[in-house]
Amino acid sequence: MNFEIKYKDARGRLGVLKTPHGNIRTPALMPVIHPGKQTIDVSLYGAEVVITNAYLIYKNKELRKIAEKEGVHKLINFSGPIVTDSGSFQLSLYGDVEVTNQEIVQFQEKIGTDIGTSLDIPTPPSVKKERAKRELEVTLQRAEEALEVREELMLNSVVQGSTYPDLRSKCADILGKMDFQVHPIGAVVPLMESYRYEELVEVVMASVSHLPDDRPRHLMGAGHPMIFALAVAMGCDLFDSAAYILYAEDDRLLMPNGTLKLENLYEMPCSCEICTSHTPEELRQMEKSERVELLARHNLNVSFAEMRRIRQSIIDGNLWELVEQRCRAHPFLLEALRSLKNFTTDLEKYDPPYKKSAFFYSGPESLNRPEVYRHWKRLERIPSKKRVLLLPRSRKPYSEYLHDIPQSYYRIIHNQSIQTLEPQSIETQLDDMQVTVVDVPFGVIPLELDQIYPLAQNESPQDYDEDSIKMVNNLLKNYLREFEEIIVSEKVLKTFRLDKTFQIDEDHLFSLPLKIMVDDHERIERIADYQFGAGAGSGLFTGDIKIVKSRKTGKIRHVYDGEELIATLRASDGVFVLAREGARRLHSFLPYPKNRVVVNEDAEPFAREGKSIFAKFVINCDINIHAKDEVLIVNEQDQLLAFGKSILNGKEIHDFKTGQAVKTRKGGF
Amino acid sequence: MNFEIKYKDARGRLGVLKTPHGNIRTPALMPVIHPGKQTIDVSLYGAEVVITNAYLIYKNKELRKIAEKEGVHKLINFSGPIVTDSGSFQLSLYGDVEVTNQEIVQFQEKIGTDIGTSLDIPTPPSVKKERAKRELEVTLQRAEEALEVREELMLNSVVQGSTYPDLRSKCADILGKMDFQVHPIGAVVPLMESYRYEELVEVVMASVSHLPDDRPRHLMGAGHPMIFALAVAMGCDLFDSAAYILYAEDDRLLMPNGTLKLENLYEMPCSCEICTSHTPEELRQMEKSERVELLARHNLNVSFAEMRRIRQSIIDGNLWELVEQRCRAHPFLLEALRSLKNFTTDLEKYDPPYKKSAFFYSGPESLNRPEVYRHWKRLERIPSKKRVLLLPRSRKPYSEYLHDIPQSYYRIIHNQSIQTLEPQSIETQLDDMQVTVVDVPFGVIPLELDQIYPLAQNESPQDYDEDSIKMVNNLLKNYLREFEEIIVSEKVLKTFRLDKTFQIDEDHLFSLPLKIMVDDHERIERIADYQFGAGAGSGLFTGDIKIVKSRKTGKIRHVYDGEELIATLRASDGVFVLAREGARRLHSFLPYPKNRVVVNEDAEPFAREGKSIFAKFVINCDINIHAKDEVLIVNEQDQLLAFGKSILNGKEIHDFKTGQAVKTRKGGF
Repeated sequence: MNFEIKYKDARGRLGVLKTPHGNIRTPALMPVIHPGKQTIDVSLYGAEVVITNAYLIYKNKELRKIAEKEGVHKLINFSGPIVTDSGSFQLSLYGDVEVTNQEIVQFQEKIGTDIGTSLDIPTPPSVKKERAKRELEVTLQRAEEALEVREELMLNSVVQGSTYPDLRSKCADILGKMDFQVHPIGAVVPLMESYRYEELVEVVMASVSHLPDDRPRHLMGAGHPMIFALAVAMGCDLFDSAAYILYAEDDRLLMPNGTLKLENLYEMPCSCEICTSHTPEELRQMEKSERVELLARHNLNVSFAEMRRIRQSIIDGNLWELVEQRCRAHPFLLEALRSLKNFTTDLEKYDPPYKKSAFFYSGPESLNRPEVYRHWKRLERIPSKKRVLLLPRSRKPYSEYLHDIPQSYYRIIHNQSIQTLEPQSIETQLDDMQVTVVDVPFGVIPLELDQIYPLAQNESPQDYDEDSIKMVNNLLKNYLREFEEIIVSEKVLKTFRLDKTFQIDEDHLFSLPLKIMVDDHERIERIADYQFGAGAGSGLFTGDIKIVKSRKTGKIRHVYDGEELIATLRASDGVFVLAREGARRLHSFLPYPKNRVVVNEDAEPFAREGKSIFAKFVINCDINIHAKDEVLIVNEQDQLLAFGKSILNGKEIHDFKTGQAVKTRKGGF
Repeated sequence: MNFEIKYKDARGRLGVLKTPHGNIRTPALMPVIHPGKQTIDVSLYGAEVVITNAYLIYKNKELRKIAEKEGVHKLINFSGPIVTDSGSFQLSLYGDVEVTNQEIVQFQEKIGTDIGTSLDIPTPPSVKKERAKRELEVTLQRAEEALEVREELMLNSVVQGSTYPDLRSKCADILGKMDFQVHPIGAVVPLMESYRYEELVEVVMASVSHLPDDRPRHLMGAGHPMIFALAVAMGCDLFDSAAYILYAEDDRLLMPNGTLKLENLYEMPCSCEICTSHTPEELRQMEKSERVELLARHNLNVSFAEMRRIRQSIIDGNLWELVEQRCRAHPFLLEALRSLKNFTTDLEKYDPPYKKSAFFYSGPESLNRPEVYRHWKRLERIPSKKRVLLLPRSRKPYSEYLHDIPQSYYRIIHNQSIQTLEPQSIETQLDDMQVTVVDVPFGVIPLELDQIYPLAQNESPQDYDEDSIKMVNNLLKNYLREFEEIIVSEKVLKTFRLDKTFQIDEDHLFSLPLKIMVDDHERIERIADYQFGAGAGSGLFTGDIKIVKSRKTGKIRHVYDGEELIATLRASDGVFVLAREGARRLHSFLPYPKNRVVVNEDAEPFAREGKSIFAKFVINCDINIHAKDEVLIVNEQDQLLAFGKSILNGKEIHDFKTGQAVKTRKGGF
């Protein structure tokens, strides 16, 4: 396979796609080049790959002659990777094309295309299901035929199925089992043209969730920068833009937050070279051809800048933040963003649990982010106590600031408030009590976890919206079910409307100063439980446990059993990095295949030497592994060979046959 | 006065400030120029005005000599308007300066500054109130003293008062009565540096709402493009940026949605000339001085592009949309945006009721926009009926699409559902029934108003958030109080949770096909009521009313009494533009001074000739006039002279002494 993932965020991938004419960094924008009349050198704007139309070349005698003789790279004067389309677009426009599937595939091979395309049937949105099915059959037959005909050519195979998610998924399943290199998602242009972004999300998610993870996906016809971030967050890797020139010909300027008409402009809207050196009036006065070229250059500048920002966001781990900003450009994009809540389970598997950037709350949509859902699930790993103390938010990390807050409390037993606590007594009873902070967006945060990413690394407005209050209220009601006794600060009770759940007697309000301390042993155990699963804390930290803190920050750094280092708490995100002894213990009590990556015999010596694990040597793994998880590297007999940090998630490790899967920390077992 | 407003949106103003060295288009960014060591020519990046420090010049023998001899324009080699600061910044840094207020004002006059500044006391945020008061006294004394000393110099007078809104307002009130040309809002840098944006909003709103509208306000020290849109929407006109160079020196890149550190960059983030021609690695490898200059150029490119976008947004009428996008860059900006709901009454007066752009819903914050609040108020102008039919949203305008929706209904009388209607009977009873659509964000829309801006020109996601549901539920409960009989579609009842208000009997659900027509006479009367006030419809449209529709769109265009045109419905926003007869009628029944702009004797002949009305001729006006309202131009005896469209609102017409106030449509009375 020719594709490799370097960084991940949301469902997005920063990767490298290898082709005969060079590598493509993804996500990538492929400008559409007209084979006969291109004037702009798109490589100057950052294009590493272009797309052109093999059918147009095939149909034009002159172009065809040059292409067949000197190759398509000479024809369009581009030395990097070239993708060609097959004429499906013309088929969708005119209902017919003068070439067969076989012919066009062979032609693409002949002219030296890097990635060719079979002649699929682009079924439009919202057709009758019968038609979608029928056309899908043809698309699948032609895909098979293309495989039979092609020799060395890398091949696109387009996912079709109109707006029927089940057909899209079925198509993706079938094509994914065949030997294709790239999967375009086809016939979505009508959805984008009419702002039907929610349906676009449905179609894309139905496709990507059934495609193999080791092939890039190309969102066909997506050339407006407004949609790039959202599409990348859903797992799209390639985009093609004819928009840059089509919009320019129509005197329209692409922007990451929409489209501007030159006729309405009083000022140029962007920081690009074109916008800083011309006024709208100057452009309006120009010859059409000159103006179109300048506007196209602006459109390329803006589109490639957006693609660079997106790649940077994947590395920084703030792609969600960018998506949530971009989706405010139009209410129907916001609608699409909101509809991602239907795919949280899937998104959670791909989204790395630990990131460089803080989680920024941007509105109710942020409540549906994978990080929030993951936290609810991981909370179940924390052992329960009989009593709980609920505190309101403070500055973070909470345990360092909570004592500043004067508090009034209610004590609730059997759903009714009651006052039998002496004012001083909470402190002395903290030992058998779960101290928990209630906050937006993560809901309930047991205080031992208050330094783990993203529970410490997030910001949200003080002024909660109704969705946040409702969500936290629901979470709280569920969370509190297991406790026999609840002591809840008045502020939490009122803010999150627990007074409608419990029968509150105002007379029972009492106040007391707080001096909350988190026990270090409790903290390391709960972090381990949260990170590795219920029981991991007590499993990892047995023996003569010594906790070493940072002199500078006072925070826990290392945990030893006697002289033996078990694990180190990473300062940046508050999670454990295993030492050799930690890995050994984890291996001893976590049942196979939990947290395992299983390598074949060939890789065993390399793993033991501490070399990183390439996907092609992996024969099995825990499907629940997330990217950036600490993982155990074992052989088929489940003997521990090494341990490290996963680059991919479980599904990706399964799918990939090239590139690194795990960055090994240490071998030597 | 030297300031004039050309376009308005939110509280923002696109204006022109005249100075001895030329005009400044506002909102404007004034790059800070170091008098001794500036290397970048900021005029190349779009700077029409710069700011430099008179105290630094004063203190440096050499600079002072040149400035006194050849003027500050020669000294810093900038031929356009120059603003100078007085040393207050140094005072805030070092606690002392070696110059008196008198000396520095006179010095600024001497060196030919366009706009000088008195030596105010920049009281930091969150000091004790006593100190803030004491220092404010000194600031006010120095302001007075500066006025006594200055001759021709235009003068800044800085609003101080720390984080006490009442002190800021008091200071603004006092300074506003004195003869200053520009009002900086001072000592807010510490708020911005620590992301205390909500307090910044409080301080700015307390200041601008008490400053005269005919002077520009300068948000002192605001140089990060992230804050520009919000600040302009609150009524700030001038910004100064030292950030472009300070951030560059610190290897940081300004972006409209935050700050990026060069060390973390893998790709350049923007479309500017610097970002398209360098990689981060190239920049990191450069000599410091070369790198700083390039980063500063990027920062200028980005900052001026943002300012251009903002000016364009004011013209397009989508400044709120831009603000709501920008405020997603950080949760504390979102918090600030949310806090604008405390100022809705004030903002509503400034925000024009009719705009070129559609209202885009971007989240719960959009519910607090002036347009929504204004709609609630104007709804009271619509006369009530006994019965109401509540319908769910459809495509807009509703009246053209509602018949497509199959509906189930409940009939509610005395808070209880009841089923005594025959299936066919709703249609025949529509005449004495108010048909109303229930939708987000405007809540209830009587069908006669469904083509008025922004009720037809808005978009929001189908998937409502909780704040929207809660707001509409509250609105509905209030709205429904006046009706004896309610027929409500099941969808409306469930979506907006009216089933908790009314006792619903599921058996009473009935369904019927709809054929809803809006009576043309009802429509024109309700539009006039909504636009001009209760009763305006019946007042305007009496006599032999003839309604002429557009052949193309089928929509109402003109309303006549016999042969006499009364008013024309503007196609773009669905509101009435008066004809002469309409103006005469409006004048006859609207009591003085409602909708009036009163001009003095000198202007009377010009007004009768149909010439536009300049602010200096206005002696009184209806304080409730909004920009873009249809207004009556009268003399002191309330004789109608002419009519036209207001450019400013009532308060602004009062305050301004220069520029146009009303664009006259017709005189001749």
